[in-house]
Amino acid sequence: MNNAAPAQTAQRAFVAPDFDAVLAAAARIAPHAHVTPVLRSRSLDAIAGCELHFKAEHLQRAGAFKFRGACNAIWSLSEADAARGVVTHSSGNHGAALALAAGTRGIACHVVVPEGAVAAKVAAIQAYGAVLHRCAANTAAREAKCAQIQAETGAELVHPYADARVIAGQGTAALELLSGDVSFDALIVPVGGGGLASGTALSVAALSPRTKLYLAEPTGAADTWESMQRGERIAQFTPDTICDGLRTLVGEPNFALLKRHGAEVLTADDRDTVAAMRLLWQRTKQTIEPSSALALATVLTRKDLFAGLRVGIILSGGNVDPDALPELFARG
Amino acid sequence: MNNAAPAQTAQRAFVAPDFDAVLAAAARIAPHAHVTPVLRSRSLDAIAGCELHFKAEHLQRAGAFKFRGACNAIWSLSEADAARGVVTHSSGNHGAALALAAGTRGIACHVVVPEGAVAAKVAAIQAYGAVLHRCAANTAAREAKCAQIQAETGAELVHPYADARVIAGQGTAALELLSGDVSFDALIVPVGGGGLASGTALSVAALSPRTKLYLAEPTGAADTWESMQRGERIAQFTPDTICDGLRTLVGEPNFALLKRHGAEVLTADDRDTVAAMRLLWQRTKQTIEPSSALALATVLTRKDLFAGLRVGIILSGGNVDPDALPELFARG
Repeated sequence: MNNAAPAQTAQRAFVAPDFDAVLAAAARIAPHAHVTPVLRSRSLDAIAGCELHFKAEHLQRAGAFKFRGACNAIWSLSEADAARGVVTHSSGNHGAALALAAGTRGIACHVVVPEGAVAAKVAAIQAYGAVLHRCAANTAAREAKCAQIQAETGAELVHPYADARVIAGQGTAALELLSGDVSFDALIVPVGGGGLASGTALSVAALSPRTKLYLAEPTGAADTWESMQRGERIAQFTPDTICDGLRTLVGEPNFALLKRHGAEVLTADDRDTVAAMRLLWQRTKQTIEPSSALALATVLTRKDLFAGLRVGIILSGGNVDPDALPELFARG
Repeated sequence: MNNAAPAQTAQRAFVAPDFDAVLAAAARIAPHAHVTPVLRSRSLDAIAGCELHFKAEHLQRAGAFKFRGACNAIWSLSEADAARGVVTHSSGNHGAALALAAGTRGIACHVVVPEGAVAAKVAAIQAYGAVLHRCAANTAAREAKCAQIQAETGAELVHPYADARVIAGQGTAALELLSGDVSFDALIVPVGGGGLASGTALSVAALSPRTKLYLAEPTGAADTWESMQRGERIAQFTPDTICDGLRTLVGEPNFALLKRHGAEVLTADDRDTVAAMRLLWQRTKQTIEPSSALALATVLTRKDLFAGLRVGIILSGGNVDPDALPELFARG
């Protein structure tokens, strides 16, 4: 990772981050990000048959872990790069997080939003002061729009997950969790593009190599699972899941890092995810989004794997459209 | 308060508790109750135009402050009294709290539940191991049923709010809040029967007499407001509010204590309450029940009163029926 070099091309060459990059990110974001609490529930422990520790990233600023990576990217920029602003494409939490993080440095932020994104998330992106750019809901349209904005403004691309600064930032959630007094047998994080997952892998490897890392993926968007089975990353799929944060193909560098780490993918279907979301809501009064509830769903549907263990779960985000909640809960 | 005397009659004579009773309650419940966190939200501060500190009693055991009073009552009983068990009437949170508290001492708990109580709350009462007794939804039926159970079992009545042990226990929430570093200009608690309100008054008077105590009451169940206007407690009313925890007439000893303290009643209608519930849910990912959201609603509808002040709000509970949530949010 070379943060000082100016962006001469549309996208920097990717250099995989290491654990030092996670530590540096932690120091860089400390003035801006929350150290989120770890929540416990004795009734959920009883239901799950194991000891659950929930890292509450839905209480992170902007309501998701994404602020960590975005903030690290923003504060990694040289003065000259920062002055030209940043751009990204995002259907939701990353866009809001980057907008908020850009605001902490007072720089411009452009967010390319595909049609069909969750309304509450788009509203948050705007409320945090980003310039919104709409595009069709496909990769080509998204990348073309981003390239156009880069060409016009010189803004730096901060990719939602295939970005070393973002991965290192996301790794700080597990850094906090694993720096506590508790020694974990397993840690579960959701996987979409793989920013959180690969950052978590860096922290697990450095701080608690005996902790088994599981990736939770919706049955309807199980590309990482399939790629792990094949041993190479599949390049196309059609997601069908309510987990709107996980409809992305896992990124190339993210997959490489996760494969090298030996992470194992568990899947759960949307029905189990909504049931987990509802259960956590009832027992802890916390609202988490489906992409987060999925991780708890994998525990509840695979109790055999976790019986009696000490399990960490990163509750990745809590941004749910209030108008969509009734329909969601009706499925549970 | 004389905890050692055996119950010879259906109900003990009421002796108003003092602040020492609150301190004693805090020590008595410490092994069982949570010290709940105080939540802050910079976006809610900006919306309200004041500094809000939320005492998160929805994260108390059994999901409401009620566990404090119930637990204090249970652990105040002599061995002989405890052996005969306890009985109460409750449409919800107090019943669940008493059942759970009785469980911490391994004693029997009978709960008389009126028809029409919130299903999720009744389910919780049962899940915590109480013996459930149904009755018609009126005071006479409730008291007759309680008296019958007392006669048959010798169980001790733990009234939901007109009970010195319960009031002292409820006062421990404000005790925790006011024992922190923050000096409050105002403190707002919801008022139904007045157990929380009168316990809070004891702690405010002892720890922070300059803090103005406000009571939040639904426009559709504003008997305390009317009683304060008249200078004496009204004895009848017909509540019409979604705040299911606040449909009760304020208790006689509770009203006397609140009047003596000079507490002021603020009202808000159900529409504003649901809007506040939804807003807090969006901004903090916390689910609170309407009876709690009401307190925030009074701030948002009377911003003139609180502009620039440091305001404590006791979020009294978070027990909402998941199946009722869609209808609730639709009203906001």
